[in-house]
Amino acid sequence: MSKEEKRTELSDLGEFGLIKEIAETVSNSNKKTVKGIGDDAAVISGSKKNTLLSTDMLVEGIHFNLAYCPLKHLGYKAVAVNLSDIYAMNAIPSHITVSMALSNRFSLEAIKELYEGINLACETYGVDLVGGDTTSSPTGLIISITAVGESNNETVYRNGAKEYDLLCVSGDLGGAYVGLQILEREHTVFKGNDQAQPELSQYPYVLERQLKPEPRKDIIEFFNKENILPSSMIDISDGLASEILHICEQSQVGCTIYEERLPIDQETYKTAEELNLSPTICALNGGEDYELLFTMSLKEYDKIKDYNGITIIGHITDKNSGANMVSSGETVIPITAQGWDALLRKD
Amino acid sequence: MSKEEKRTELSDLGEFGLIKEIAETVSNSNKKTVKGIGDDAAVISGSKKNTLLSTDMLVEGIHFNLAYCPLKHLGYKAVAVNLSDIYAMNAIPSHITVSMALSNRFSLEAIKELYEGINLACETYGVDLVGGDTTSSPTGLIISITAVGESNNETVYRNGAKEYDLLCVSGDLGGAYVGLQILEREHTVFKGNDQAQPELSQYPYVLERQLKPEPRKDIIEFFNKENILPSSMIDISDGLASEILHICEQSQVGCTIYEERLPIDQETYKTAEELNLSPTICALNGGEDYELLFTMSLKEYDKIKDYNGITIIGHITDKNSGANMVSSGETVIPITAQGWDALLRKD
Repeated sequence: MSKEEKRTELSDLGEFGLIKEIAETVSNSNKKTVKGIGDDAAVISGSKKNTLLSTDMLVEGIHFNLAYCPLKHLGYKAVAVNLSDIYAMNAIPSHITVSMALSNRFSLEAIKELYEGINLACETYGVDLVGGDTTSSPTGLIISITAVGESNNETVYRNGAKEYDLLCVSGDLGGAYVGLQILEREHTVFKGNDQAQPELSQYPYVLERQLKPEPRKDIIEFFNKENILPSSMIDISDGLASEILHICEQSQVGCTIYEERLPIDQETYKTAEELNLSPTICALNGGEDYELLFTMSLKEYDKIKDYNGITIIGHITDKNSGANMVSSGETVIPITAQGWDALLRKD
Repeated sequence: MSKEEKRTELSDLGEFGLIKEIAETVSNSNKKTVKGIGDDAAVISGSKKNTLLSTDMLVEGIHFNLAYCPLKHLGYKAVAVNLSDIYAMNAIPSHITVSMALSNRFSLEAIKELYEGINLACETYGVDLVGGDTTSSPTGLIISITAVGESNNETVYRNGAKEYDLLCVSGDLGGAYVGLQILEREHTVFKGNDQAQPELSQYPYVLERQLKPEPRKDIIEFFNKENILPSSMIDISDGLASEILHICEQSQVGCTIYEERLPIDQETYKTAEELNLSPTICALNGGEDYELLFTMSLKEYDKIKDYNGITIIGHITDKNSGANMVSSGETVIPITAQGWDALLRKD
């Protein structure tokens, strides 16, 4: 960093001092919040609707690289990916808790930047941050977020897809993965020559997809407004192929999707080709798009056909047919999951 | 370890394989569980009562040392400390999620041992494990648990203590800290001479207090049965002194406690003296006892005076008097918090 920046050591603040500083950045506005940060537990007013609960852990060096992921974006994304899980149940997130372990490499100013992103995501999605834990880590940063939500209408699971249902996705796919490849390429160039300026300005869309994913609240609101109940739903975190296989396995069905129907943004397509990557493979296995994959009865077709953010990519078949993709060349290819597996890394 | 043990590498299983193995060890029995592990989020049936939410993160090398903390005990304790936070709100925990980051130093067998402890705590306290996240860590083990509960009766906060209220604690204090000192002493001896056998058999109570704390579900059940509503409550995780100051600060009151009233088990007392530690300081600042500290109106005195697990250690005063302890020698000493501060450690 070129300019002189203030650095407040966490060791000078202590845990309670840090919690106080964090709490001051948080403002609660969700009507269900009875008590936020500051007691043994947060208190949320009861409701007869189902309560949804989802949690994710992000580890520095595994899930993010602070060399090219700004802390504010990291905070935003850490919240966004959790909210996405709640939306994927046809539910509305209302509250989160944020726990983190951090080494003394991080200053108060850095943590505040992280919370700027966390708080921005909370405001954007109407969610209150009501608790957490803050502790030290021998190395690096670990963030664990738990999201709580309330069912919107009926809860939608992964296991309700039926033969002949339409298979649909929101938004477009592959962008987040392609964005990550660009960030890693420019980071490698930068490491070799620290006078190099990263070339990022040509890739605004795919970088945004990687650094600032937006969970599809709008789709759940659209379902609610139009009285649409998907038969099954999941969010796309590990890649379309992996999520399709989850739905097929849990619903005991097969499916056919069409390569030419896969929604891929032009910038994603062009950048994938520039990187010598197949845009289709990026869409199928890239992951981190945080779009929704869902199935619905054919009779709902009229309700969704004109909605701009939904693409029908195929349909559900019987289990024995398996999960297949019809390629642009008209060949039938079995769908296999190649989502990255964080556990493959060595100590 | 002397016997040959089977070691299944997590990298051979992959994340989904590990989740499947973990899910098979988990059985849900809480009536409110609609859907546990296996979808984007867990589903809990709604209730008009308040929902409580608490979370804790435990980091290897900061909060636990696997050289002397068996994985099964670690799992049990990680759950117990979270449930303690829910009980401290006068509520009943019902569900938890467990996230962990682990390095490839851990085998499937080690993780199963950890989950044995987690599952045992869940069974003991009637809590269902309904979700989580499993990922890799560059080094060591990090566990993040979120507990969800439902209010028992009225929710009890830290801020309701009133002048003249009785100040009470459950159980006895200082044991967990003294137990930790014994474990660290024997570990140091063992490191110097690996033929040495740790001398632990004389310290069964304090070791149990450190390794297998039990949150005070029974006290909350007693309150419910006797229709007792504490005016304020907190669980003792950082040490009695620190928790007293939280109640005084949030309730805008002072207090007087009496050194001779502090409940200290005989083994704790004797072992503290053996270690040249003041039993009173261990009780005040040791932490990790997971007992309940609470205040209640004088008129409730008859309801609690004969209950074996509750000790009245003092009373609430006006704010200007401050928080003080009357020592055995009749001198008045201001109470100051010296709970260990995890953030003081360096990277």
